[in-house]
Amino acid sequence: MTEAKRSRLETPDGAMFDGYTLPYGVFSTAREEPRVGAAVGDYVIDLAPLAAVEGLDGGHVFDRPSLNPFMSLGRPAWQAVRDWLLELVTAGSPSELLEPHLVPLSDVELHMPFEVADYVDFYSSRSHAENVGKIFRPDSPSLPAAWRHLPIGYHGRSATVVPSGSEIVRPSGLRRSGDGVVFGPSNRLDIEAEVGFVVGTPSERGHPVPVDDFTEHVFGVVLVNDWSARDLQAFEYVPLGPFLGKSFATSISPWVVPLAALEHARIEPPVRDPEPAAYLAEAEPWGLDIRLEVEWNGTVVSQPPFAEMYWTPAQQLAHLTVNGAAVRTGELYASGTVSGPEKDERGSFLELSWNGSEPVVLDNGSRRSFLEDGDTVIIRATAPGPGGTRLKLGEVSGSVRPAGDSGR
Amino acid sequence: MTEAKRSRLETPDGAMFDGYTLPYGVFSTAREEPRVGAAVGDYVIDLAPLAAVEGLDGGHVFDRPSLNPFMSLGRPAWQAVRDWLLELVTAGSPSELLEPHLVPLSDVELHMPFEVADYVDFYSSRSHAENVGKIFRPDSPSLPAAWRHLPIGYHGRSATVVPSGSEIVRPSGLRRSGDGVVFGPSNRLDIEAEVGFVVGTPSERGHPVPVDDFTEHVFGVVLVNDWSARDLQAFEYVPLGPFLGKSFATSISPWVVPLAALEHARIEPPVRDPEPAAYLAEAEPWGLDIRLEVEWNGTVVSQPPFAEMYWTPAQQLAHLTVNGAAVRTGELYASGTVSGPEKDERGSFLELSWNGSEPVVLDNGSRRSFLEDGDTVIIRATAPGPGGTRLKLGEVSGSVRPAGDSGR
Repeated sequence: MTEAKRSRLETPDGAMFDGYTLPYGVFSTAREEPRVGAAVGDYVIDLAPLAAVEGLDGGHVFDRPSLNPFMSLGRPAWQAVRDWLLELVTAGSPSELLEPHLVPLSDVELHMPFEVADYVDFYSSRSHAENVGKIFRPDSPSLPAAWRHLPIGYHGRSATVVPSGSEIVRPSGLRRSGDGVVFGPSNRLDIEAEVGFVVGTPSERGHPVPVDDFTEHVFGVVLVNDWSARDLQAFEYVPLGPFLGKSFATSISPWVVPLAALEHARIEPPVRDPEPAAYLAEAEPWGLDIRLEVEWNGTVVSQPPFAEMYWTPAQQLAHLTVNGAAVRTGELYASGTVSGPEKDERGSFLELSWNGSEPVVLDNGSRRSFLEDGDTVIIRATAPGPGGTRLKLGEVSGSVRPAGDSGR
Repeated sequence: MTEAKRSRLETPDGAMFDGYTLPYGVFSTAREEPRVGAAVGDYVIDLAPLAAVEGLDGGHVFDRPSLNPFMSLGRPAWQAVRDWLLELVTAGSPSELLEPHLVPLSDVELHMPFEVADYVDFYSSRSHAENVGKIFRPDSPSLPAAWRHLPIGYHGRSATVVPSGSEIVRPSGLRRSGDGVVFGPSNRLDIEAEVGFVVGTPSERGHPVPVDDFTEHVFGVVLVNDWSARDLQAFEYVPLGPFLGKSFATSISPWVVPLAALEHARIEPPVRDPEPAAYLAEAEPWGLDIRLEVEWNGTVVSQPPFAEMYWTPAQQLAHLTVNGAAVRTGELYASGTVSGPEKDERGSFLELSWNGSEPVVLDNGSRRSFLEDGDTVIIRATAPGPGGTRLKLGEVSGSVRPAGDSGR
């Protein structure tokens, strides 16, 4: 490797990604159409021409504006491509091959990385569910009756899953006001910091996915901000659940981190009591030690620990399909808001400000309970990597525009 | 027109469709791939070759296994094609053109007519909502607080929307049993007779669809059976709404009836009190006088009147998007169970058997509260057509297979 080339593949501390995570995304340049790339350091590897030069089997899937064709190939193909890339980015390999296909991240536009089939949102953080129960249903038990028996979830809106950076127009709708009902912009606009799982290998209707088949189906992980209008949600949600309070936008990080990159992040999940039903009982239960970070207008206000999640992503997939429902390539299921037991681990502003009663003070002295127009939220995450390293999992950001101001 | 040709285009009483409804679907024959057709009498018009012969602009959209490309062309194109077809099937027109492109319905296989983008299910029958409230929440007001203010709805699962005839495997899941929780096949498997609306013209995120723009966006109508496992649903639905109790299967009729064929079915909707919010206030409110019929193992057990629906499909679309949510070509939104005020107008077995306390007696003397393995349900519908005729809107059928027996 020449000196110049080595320096391009180094991944200094400030770089977006190291050389091990190798997340996949869809990018375009001024001159070329959207296609699949992998990120390393501050570069995108343009996979389609590289695969062509290398004669990689099935490499045409990279010359597409979505990860779906690649994801539909299944785990052996995902692993083969990852092994190939790991070898290429490792010092000592013939990087002359790689060099012509590196595009600076600063020169590309990032797009939705995949076409979302169904979008499901779970509710699997015990601290979050308990906090929300205490705030909204103070006279009932803080956990819903079914909560410790199954991972509660619901379907969200695929059409409005958008990539990081998409602007978020404050939604309008009906809400309670005193004794009446009024229409207008939400005044309790919130975030939910979550981790999303992206299905690669589909399943058939009538054939539940066994809980231990998780890694055969799930391709990777994205960070999710499930924007929520608490006032619209509170008015509409009985008895069929959240609808307009959620469906205006869900933002995801543009880089899908392969599940294989997270093998060092596996940890034991919390003790489950009662014992889960057989279809939810994993041979070797594991969660992921992903640490989230929520930044509000430049101030880090929370560090939600994904390690605390009561239900694991494998249990969520098994539950989702136990009734015979099929999953398709591109299904996105999110964990639900990640909140830890500590105040500075809460993954929503509803919880951080305790429904507005304990405003959050930002570094510039401003106080916030919910989002104001112009506010920007960035969710980042890291996870343990090989040899004691810590992998960056990217970020999802969004800014709030005033109601009626159409977003892009 | 020759005698032989005239007889093929006649639509005797027993025929599937008359010559006015002209619904669209996706069919295949033993020798040819799935493509778009229109139904007349007991025939399918093979639209792609007919459009080619006729030099119809944009006719290539028919040579596809889905209605989405045609639906995405927008209302002027839908109207132009309908006008062209109406002229072709009218006696006196040069039917030599049509004749070679008629395929007997008995020779074709019907497929999913469109790719479902998002699937939304509303809850807009007042009688249904009141019945369910009385059965499940006897100590609360029978209508949820928001019900008369907005069309309550939720997102369902697109992946398991299936065409009429698909078999329905009894779903398994967790449910309450006495003081405990057990896993097993649902023993309260139910139907919901509904009308579904299919979006052709998409909308942009951030741009609500005005209530009076309904006909610019909605292409047509299907019949829907939203299969429901009441015991799974009852256990899981607090606080995020139905999930596995619904997501195993939703069946739709294979023929999409163009909205333009229903102009004679327009009627005034029920009085709305309180006055709807401005975004739900139509300049000229109208519902549709569609009469449903539910047949259970050969016995007609109910005739739900769509005319009774409190919220109209135009209001549903306006509500769905008022928060800035985008709709895409292929979005399916269903009305919610259609129930009238009379007992024999109820659109679910939960209501017909009043949660099992008043079993339904079928013509062969058998008694039913919920579905048993092997049962077949067919939902049909008619609507007023031109000159006092009554149009057939097709049917959606499904049979129940035992739990664990994988469906097709």
